[in-house]
Amino acid sequence: MGTRLGALVERLGGQLVGDANLEVTGIAPLTDAGVSHISFLSNSKLRAQAAQSQAAALIVSAADDAFIAAGYSGARIVVPNPYVYFARAAQYFESLTAIVPAAGVHATAVVADSAQIAASAHIGPRVVIEDGAVIEDGAVISAGCFIGREAVIGEGTKLFANVTFQAYCQIGKRGIIHSGAVIGTDGFGFANEGGVYIKIPQTGRVIIGDDVDIGANTTIDRGALADTIIEDGVKLDNQIQIGHNCHIGAHTAMAGCVGVAGSAKIGKYCTFGGAAMVLGHLTIADKVHVGSGSMVSRSILEPGQYTGFYPLAKNADWEKSAVIVRNLPAMRDKIRALEKTIKTKTEEDES
Amino acid sequence: MGTRLGALVERLGGQLVGDANLEVTGIAPLTDAGVSHISFLSNSKLRAQAAQSQAAALIVSAADDAFIAAGYSGARIVVPNPYVYFARAAQYFESLTAIVPAAGVHATAVVADSAQIAASAHIGPRVVIEDGAVIEDGAVISAGCFIGREAVIGEGTKLFANVTFQAYCQIGKRGIIHSGAVIGTDGFGFANEGGVYIKIPQTGRVIIGDDVDIGANTTIDRGALADTIIEDGVKLDNQIQIGHNCHIGAHTAMAGCVGVAGSAKIGKYCTFGGAAMVLGHLTIADKVHVGSGSMVSRSILEPGQYTGFYPLAKNADWEKSAVIVRNLPAMRDKIRALEKTIKTKTEEDES
Amino acid sequence: MGTRLGALVERLGGQLVGDANLEVTGIAPLTDAGVSHISFLSNSKLRAQAAQSQAAALIVSAADDAFIAAGYSGARIVVPNPYVYFARAAQYFESLTAIVPAAGVHATAVVADSAQIAASAHIGPRVVIEDGAVIEDGAVISAGCFIGREAVIGEGTKLFANVTFQAYCQIGKRGIIHSGAVIGTDGFGFANEGGVYIKIPQTGRVIIGDDVDIGANTTIDRGALADTIIEDGVKLDNQIQIGHNCHIGAHTAMAGCVGVAGSAKIGKYCTFGGAAMVLGHLTIADKVHVGSGSMVSRSILEPGQYTGFYPLAKNADWEKSAVIVRNLPAMRDKIRALEKTIKTKTEEDES
Repeated sequence: MGTRLGALVERLGGQLVGDANLEVTGIAPLTDAGVSHISFLSNSKLRAQAAQSQAAALIVSAADDAFIAAGYSGARIVVPNPYVYFARAAQYFESLTAIVPAAGVHATAVVADSAQIAASAHIGPRVVIEDGAVIEDGAVISAGCFIGREAVIGEGTKLFANVTFQAYCQIGKRGIIHSGAVIGTDGFGFANEGGVYIKIPQTGRVIIGDDVDIGANTTIDRGALADTIIEDGVKLDNQIQIGHNCHIGAHTAMAGCVGVAGSAKIGKYCTFGGAAMVLGHLTIADKVHVGSGSMVSRSILEPGQYTGFYPLAKNADWEKSAVIVRNLPAMRDKIRALEKTIKTKTEEDES
Repeated sequence: MGTRLGALVERLGGQLVGDANLEVTGIAPLTDAGVSHISFLSNSKLRAQAAQSQAAALIVSAADDAFIAAGYSGARIVVPNPYVYFARAAQYFESLTAIVPAAGVHATAVVADSAQIAASAHIGPRVVIEDGAVIEDGAVISAGCFIGREAVIGEGTKLFANVTFQAYCQIGKRGIIHSGAVIGTDGFGFANEGGVYIKIPQTGRVIIGDDVDIGANTTIDRGALADTIIEDGVKLDNQIQIGHNCHIGAHTAMAGCVGVAGSAKIGKYCTFGGAAMVLGHLTIADKVHVGSGSMVSRSILEPGQYTGFYPLAKNADWEKSAVIVRNLPAMRDKIRALEKTIKTKTEEDES
Repeated sequence: MGTRLGALVERLGGQLVGDANLEVTGIAPLTDAGVSHISFLSNSKLRAQAAQSQAAALIVSAADDAFIAAGYSGARIVVPNPYVYFARAAQYFESLTAIVPAAGVHATAVVADSAQIAASAHIGPRVVIEDGAVIEDGAVISAGCFIGREAVIGEGTKLFANVTFQAYCQIGKRGIIHSGAVIGTDGFGFANEGGVYIKIPQTGRVIIGDDVDIGANTTIDRGALADTIIEDGVKLDNQIQIGHNCHIGAHTAMAGCVGVAGSAKIGKYCTFGGAAMVLGHLTIADKVHVGSGSMVSRSILEPGQYTGFYPLAKNADWEKSAVIVRNLPAMRDKIRALEKTIKTKTEEDES
């Protein structure tokens, strides 16, 4: 259940320095790697640690290789980006032991006659698939999932157990949706008449591109009239909320607990730290990076790193500073008064 | 699959200026509306846009109608509140095409003999309904829902797929519960004995009024001894957490990711922006509006708009301001020292 | 369906002052307790209220008993910690009426042949249990749960309806997992190659100790290579997110909506208020208490109470203070300039 280094390099590239016939059984961090593992050095600060690793082989950059080659006796795979190579190698090792769900529809699944299920797709136990839904080649719909009417699950996309994917929504190829996620719930849209809310029907869809990952218990609302759009390569962690009519640009990533209110338009290649929040109807440019716990209350039109959270302190210190924060306008007024007093005094003295 | 303008006005009211026999097929925003759509003008800033709309008819207020009547050649429906009328019209158009789940119990549902299921209710595939539960007329329990012992689902209330509604809890009429919501989970109640937590049984219920909407993956805890109460007309978005023994007043609305800790008592007609948080045992008056991302740490006894989140900035700027926030007490002391110095100097000069 | 006071004290300890043969039917708060209830006084401020309670018996500390004995005519159970005793008594009363799910596997459950199900375990309707999973004695797997391959559910642990427990993960004895929780979803791990994310397989597990409670819709990610660890006695409320490779120390409690990013190491006996957030790779010492809505952005190596959230204010006041918060560096510079001016002036005056 392993591979020869030569076979790995043949598959994934990189320059091998060492024995191509050496067998390795898996991948492990520097500190845990044993003599049958390969490991990786993605942070130059760990060169000394790497040189002492017991790993059979190390994935390294050329710059780091020059430093560790002398001290480290194992094989090296020299590559431009060791962390990316590690990811690909880990995918490869995982593929050696992964249990691929069998094609076919489980006897306990409830599948509408008009649904189109590819012969190579896996439909697990207790799945419900409604009229006109399309499950493409190699898609995996795990136990307990619900697929609504005319929804489309693209080729090779995997839904873990207990995902809810509502009617008319679509996801492209090679996506992953984790358990408990709900795609295509009604957006939060109401008109208010004398204090009472009147529901606005949410008749748009959620349209999700290729290579999109969606975390556990994440929710994405369908559009009100138009659609909610998630472009290719977007990665959403767990417990994220995306409001109706949002548009998330390609290759943007959001960490857990992020919330995006309705109709926000977020660019490509952005990142959002955990629990960051974006208000509705804002525009966020490409390559904007928002720190964890930060509230985005205005549009951000320039790329860059943005942050806004109250710094943590010992409770007693926080209480003191928080009182002053409330009273900052008074403090500003005092400073202005001091400036004026001094200016007046100086003028008097000089006159 | 459309309607004549005359039929719409007959049903929903409003003063029609134009051809009552004109057929319209749906409703769309000003910018998207085509010649068979009706559209609406709910924001007077968009008068110019409205006047150029291709829509067959516009829903407008009398004030706006006076402005657009000259420029716009389509029909107009003049009403007191165009946005509310839009909501009702959208509901009507949706009703023309909506697929109503058929009455009856799906063959794969597991329903206890002692449960009372109205003949007009829909019980979807894979639903589980336990002993003594009551599903009233016209209720819709979609695929995969769980209804606990002696729970009550009121007339016309709809549960989307994969809702969990625990034992003894109740929801009234015309409610909506979205997928993944969990109603009636145990509250977070423990006694601490030498560092170890002893669970306090949570034996209260969740009692939900009429016309309440509950978002996807929202959780509402059952009371510890007494009940958790959600009054009529409350609207909860996705991923909201309501702690045990909370009381949410009628027609209060909360946006996504809001958290309310146990035993908070929230008034009627309040609104909470996304990710706002309310600590436990607080009282919030009627008509309090809390901004997104704001932490309510004390009771609010006066209506009004309240906010409290750290303003976003470029990361470098935030770092500078955050350091000073921590040191505000020192800054205050410096200002006091300056004030004292100047006061002393002034007195010296004057003496 | 009640108990004699004597039987209660025999079971739970405490010094009974009053009639051991008195029958009580349940437990209630001071204000609600009727003549057949017992109640408890856990807060000395409520002594006067307690003395007037209609409860048949009161659980009190010795200190409080000295005060109320004169005024209160019912029985008293004198104990060191009335709140803990209340919890245990409430557990006892609940046990008298609790409906224990019957042992055995429901006909609609889908259980792999190679799974090991204890004869005393309850497997509810629509449950799916995959190959090699182990369900120990007395465990309860409620309707709609999914148990992945080779997962282990310990003795007496209860999963409420619709829990997802992924492959290879384990939970110990006497645990509770509430509905909608997802244990063992993939961690959020990617390598970035030119803006595009490459998934790092998440091959670790989630290993959960004994006496752990996990709230509704809470998510715990499996480790990337090593495991995510939740030690004994940890209590997690609803909608909490625990990232991959986190380690949560024994008897730590987290309130609803808390987020912990990957590889954070949190000590024992900590508490986290609702919606507190912990960044990744941090270390938190034992007995650290983090307030609600606070962002932990650096390691905390000393026990204590920590807080950091922006204080709530009327919106107009917040807007004024928030503007100044952004401009604090300018304010500091003004103060420095004032200090310098005064220093210069004073030196001039004195020269």
